[in-house]
Amino acid sequence: MAKSIFYHAGCPVCVSAENDIIELIGETQVDIIHLGEETTRIKEAESAGVKSVPALVTPKGHVLHINFGASLDDLKN
Amino acid sequence: MAKSIFYHAGCPVCVSAENDIIELIGETQVDIIHLGEETTRIKEAESAGVKSVPALVTPKGHVLHINFGASLDDLKN
Repeated sequence: MAKSIFYHAGCPVCVSAENDIIELIGETQVDIIHLGEETTRIKEAESAGVKSVPALVTPKGHVLHINFGASLDDLKN
Repeated sequence: MAKSIFYHAGCPVCVSAENDIIELIGETQVDIIHLGEETTRIKEAESAGVKSVPALVTPKGHVLHINFGASLDDLKN
């Protein structure tokens, strides 16, 4: 099965959600991307439909915005 | 392992998120509660920290608000 991608920005809300997602779906099933560090991937996240972090993009390409840490626009500045 | 609880209200955003969650964590790992039909459980959801649906409460009791369908307050009216 294709992996999900979890986008975050290191915020407390993000870290908490990351731990929960890893527990729920398993560490091997998800790639974790820190958009604060990997800023070149913000565009990719945006194209996938991510509006804010933390967010999980499923193998089918659906975006699940989980709680709210920061908007993607804020990460660009 | 204890199950997660997925609270929803039958809205399109809820149904889409429900399908994604079932695919990600497996149908046997999550109880699905329709708060529009089981209104007596709104209080339980509220106590767990659910503010809006769809939301997933993890076995650890953490609340993941997934996208946004409706606020819990709207379901009371």
